[in-house]
Amino acid sequence: MNKGPANDVLLRALRRQPVDRTPVWMMRQAGRYLPEYLETRAQAGSFMDLCRNPELACEVTLQPLRRFPLDAAILFSDILTVPDAMGLGLYFEAGEGPRFERPVRTAADVRQLRTVDPETELGYVMNAVRTIRRELDGQVPLIGFSGSPWTVATYMIEGGSSRDFGKIKRMLYAEPAILHSLLDKVTQVTAGYLNAQIAAGAQAIMVFDTWGSVLTPSAYKEFSLDYMARILDSLETGEGEERVPTILFTKGAGTRLTSMVETGCDGLGVDWTTDLAEARRLTAGRVALQGNLDPSVLKANPEVIRREVGRVLESYGHGGGHVFNLGHGITPDVPPEHAGAMIEAVHALSPAFHQDR
Amino acid sequence: MNKGPANDVLLRALRRQPVDRTPVWMMRQAGRYLPEYLETRAQAGSFMDLCRNPELACEVTLQPLRRFPLDAAILFSDILTVPDAMGLGLYFEAGEGPRFERPVRTAADVRQLRTVDPETELGYVMNAVRTIRRELDGQVPLIGFSGSPWTVATYMIEGGSSRDFGKIKRMLYAEPAILHSLLDKVTQVTAGYLNAQIAAGAQAIMVFDTWGSVLTPSAYKEFSLDYMARILDSLETGEGEERVPTILFTKGAGTRLTSMVETGCDGLGVDWTTDLAEARRLTAGRVALQGNLDPSVLKANPEVIRREVGRVLESYGHGGGHVFNLGHGITPDVPPEHAGAMIEAVHALSPAFHQDR
Repeated sequence: MNKGPANDVLLRALRRQPVDRTPVWMMRQAGRYLPEYLETRAQAGSFMDLCRNPELACEVTLQPLRRFPLDAAILFSDILTVPDAMGLGLYFEAGEGPRFERPVRTAADVRQLRTVDPETELGYVMNAVRTIRRELDGQVPLIGFSGSPWTVATYMIEGGSSRDFGKIKRMLYAEPAILHSLLDKVTQVTAGYLNAQIAAGAQAIMVFDTWGSVLTPSAYKEFSLDYMARILDSLETGEGEERVPTILFTKGAGTRLTSMVETGCDGLGVDWTTDLAEARRLTAGRVALQGNLDPSVLKANPEVIRREVGRVLESYGHGGGHVFNLGHGITPDVPPEHAGAMIEAVHALSPAFHQDR
Repeated sequence: MNKGPANDVLLRALRRQPVDRTPVWMMRQAGRYLPEYLETRAQAGSFMDLCRNPELACEVTLQPLRRFPLDAAILFSDILTVPDAMGLGLYFEAGEGPRFERPVRTAADVRQLRTVDPETELGYVMNAVRTIRRELDGQVPLIGFSGSPWTVATYMIEGGSSRDFGKIKRMLYAEPAILHSLLDKVTQVTAGYLNAQIAAGAQAIMVFDTWGSVLTPSAYKEFSLDYMARILDSLETGEGEERVPTILFTKGAGTRLTSMVETGCDGLGVDWTTDLAEARRLTAGRVALQGNLDPSVLKANPEVIRREVGRVLESYGHGGGHVFNLGHGITPDVPPEHAGAMIEAVHALSPAFHQDR
């Protein structure tokens, strides 16, 4: 039986246990703002070549941890590995973002989707998880992840990124049964994929629902939240038979946070458009909260960064159950030392929020 | 002294007076989904040529009213006429949206902005308002509008449309005094612009804050809401010395709706990501609510459209104070008969929500 990581402040915070300071990591912390990432990526070839190479995916996963005292590593991968494995043919067009060769448009397209054995078609991800765990050597926990079925389906149906989600919304309103059959398949594959990540060594799981908030509240429940809940229900225990903590993140969730608690997740990601004080009220203290510095703050300067970190900590307030993070991924134009200033500020300012009063 | 329009159901609803049925109009109702609009636009030349031609701007304003029994006309214009008049040089790049020749980046850029006499630099808008009022001949009220200072400033600083608002947010966090001086100038020009529209005959005013919700709640108050409040405070009375009803619309406002009420506006636009029942609770019945059908519903079919119109009416519930609208502008790919089906459904289904119980 494995013991937990030496630094377990993230896992404790997600379980709402007492901690000495607020844990901190950054969405997209292994990314283009780091010159060493750009070097490794150039060495790998394309973005997907990097995802498919376990040694190099491990290397970029660990790079931010060598620079900064972060409390978690997050698997370097992409939410679109799942539909790629289902047969859609993922590729990246320069300046255009992700595209699919064979987008889903009809009931027949849904029927033709491949079932996926995660250790085969997505074996490169599991190999990356195992390699990272070995190299991390128990220092900090490793977060595995997937996209939400709704968010992944937007790319599968639109064929890539979208501004108004016209195709998937037309299907949602006019042919909901086809959309449900697609979401059902993506949910099954995603559950298997996350369970394989847990078996390979992921110690926490995050589900990214980037586009859930483009839906009406009732459509959000029917087409996004209910499928995320099914995934969480099907997750197996990790090492030492412990339940692996789970984090759901719907960007722009707002008052949807209240319904998200009902999935039984351990934590909710919160973007910067909702105050953590309001989020804490909406979730009635039943889950941990992760967030929520506006990533644009990192474009300013260390003094402003420290002030805004203080405002986020203040907004959550006293006590456990807070994981400091950005409200969305760090952007490529941020100087690495600004990310460092943010992490330093969390280390310096957060202990005051965890002392007995 | 002028009397009000023959059809005053919109004005009554905005004042939360009893009505027989829910009034209905559509954001961007004069637009590219109408073949007759495309014809007039081709005749005018560019989009800005159309805005600058009072006869043709009047023609496209009236086109949707010839097709559909709408309860309001809205001035055909653009929120970027204001910064154009302030000297930024607006142009439209094919497929790229609006651009400015001279974006604002420094304190010196702000100082160099021109003051604007709305009857001179923006006289073409006032001529359009007068022409439309003459042609409308008192049938339905005419809505005038502007952008919010924050939303207009995003274009002025970014130089056009943006995904992450990196430049204006860097200024907001690192050099807030420069941003405030810009917002102050835009607010002054916008107030004068809207007062000139009222003097020329606008019978209701809407302020579009398309990008307010990309801010944290506290930055929203400081950099967007407070400037909209200043504009509303400075509006003069219209014909017959009556206060002209005002509508604020922050896309994705969510819980910000509560603070928006404090501006003293008459109505709030609500997009489809917040239920009207929730919006009514957040605003405690102190304002009218306008919205909020997901514009994507219009891509489906008449049966679905009627069902979803019913759900929106149901969600607002019984009583006055509701103006039916889309949650955002109608998109170019909507068949005009689908817009007609929506309006017909509002006429058919809404009287039941206004009968004494």
